[in-house]
Amino acid sequence: MLSVAGMNKKERQAALLQLLEKEPFVTDEDLAKQFDVSIQTIRLDRLALGIPELRERIKAVAETKQSELRSLEGTEVIGELIELTLNEIAISIFDIEPVHVFSKTRIVRGHHLFAQANSLAVAVIDADVVLTRTAKLRFVRPARLGERLVCKAVVTSNKSDRAQVEVTTRVGEDVIFSGEFVVVKLGIDSVIGGMEP
Amino acid sequence: MLSVAGMNKKERQAALLQLLEKEPFVTDEDLAKQFDVSIQTIRLDRLALGIPELRERIKAVAETKQSELRSLEGTEVIGELIELTLNEIAISIFDIEPVHVFSKTRIVRGHHLFAQANSLAVAVIDADVVLTRTAKLRFVRPARLGERLVCKAVVTSNKSDRAQVEVTTRVGEDVIFSGEFVVVKLGIDSVIGGMEP
Repeated sequence: MLSVAGMNKKERQAALLQLLEKEPFVTDEDLAKQFDVSIQTIRLDRLALGIPELRERIKAVAETKQSELRSLEGTEVIGELIELTLNEIAISIFDIEPVHVFSKTRIVRGHHLFAQANSLAVAVIDADVVLTRTAKLRFVRPARLGERLVCKAVVTSNKSDRAQVEVTTRVGEDVIFSGEFVVVKLGIDSVIGGMEP
Repeated sequence: MLSVAGMNKKERQAALLQLLEKEPFVTDEDLAKQFDVSIQTIRLDRLALGIPELRERIKAVAETKQSELRSLEGTEVIGELIELTLNEIAISIFDIEPVHVFSKTRIVRGHHLFAQANSLAVAVIDADVVLTRTAKLRFVRPARLGERLVCKAVVTSNKSDRAQVEVTTRVGEDVIFSGEFVVVKLGIDSVIGGMEP
């Protein structure tokens, strides 16, 4: 916890800057709570410090991470890629919008959860072409319009021709989806042309 | 096999009509082979008989099938629904277009295969709200730009609160994807409002 009692504006802004360098994806709401000030004060602080809003911070990070991808083009990752260490771990953020939910229930459609997880399981692997071979999925609880899905892929086994990736998607602290993926690695030559019927 | 030798135009058109009533989704190419005439002749026969092209025939069937759905809105099924017997079997057709494939390999993205299968596993169930609980997927071989995916969902077990659905996707005779889905049935009231945080 921050010791915020009696901080003046200059001290608060310095602490804010330091905190956002370590944890760039904290919301204004959470910052306001942590510093025990209003959200409006946090917005003014950010403005004074030249720190863009959360949405823009996520996009900026995603753009730098995308350039490190090997198996996918940047735009092929579903969600915003905010963390990537090839063959180890990847994290993406996906905000649920009206187009992603069922009309009747406003619950997110299962294939969007799968798309975020599956593309991350492929993205985390360091190979030219990576294809999903098998997946075991568990939809733990429905996710809803307006929620933010944070998906984490961890490589748990990595051989020359295949890898196993465990993927977990959370809303806040709640796990809402998990999957075990086995992906295979192929050379680009074996895929373009070679497998045509 | 049809006995087509020596058929005149009138006989061929009568046989064509009969065949398309039984198997409405045969392509002009296959019809030409079966009747041992040119594709152009088949097109002229269809024109004379007032039979629309395959794409239109699929759409027309899909529109009537959609009205029988219970758990999904018609537009929520991924692909064109061409067969539906609630709690028993459903079939959909999905044509792979450029937007569905990876730029590098022209292989269809896994989440489109999943979306077709998952939406069909939900659509086949006769309940107000159906959600996927678990799925075990197997991506057998990559599907490619221009291929037609025919997906079949068969209900293998059906209890009051959940059901098991086996889904198989083929291109021609080849199985390219299979999945075992467990779906749960919910009342609409328990979903709208009741599960909000």
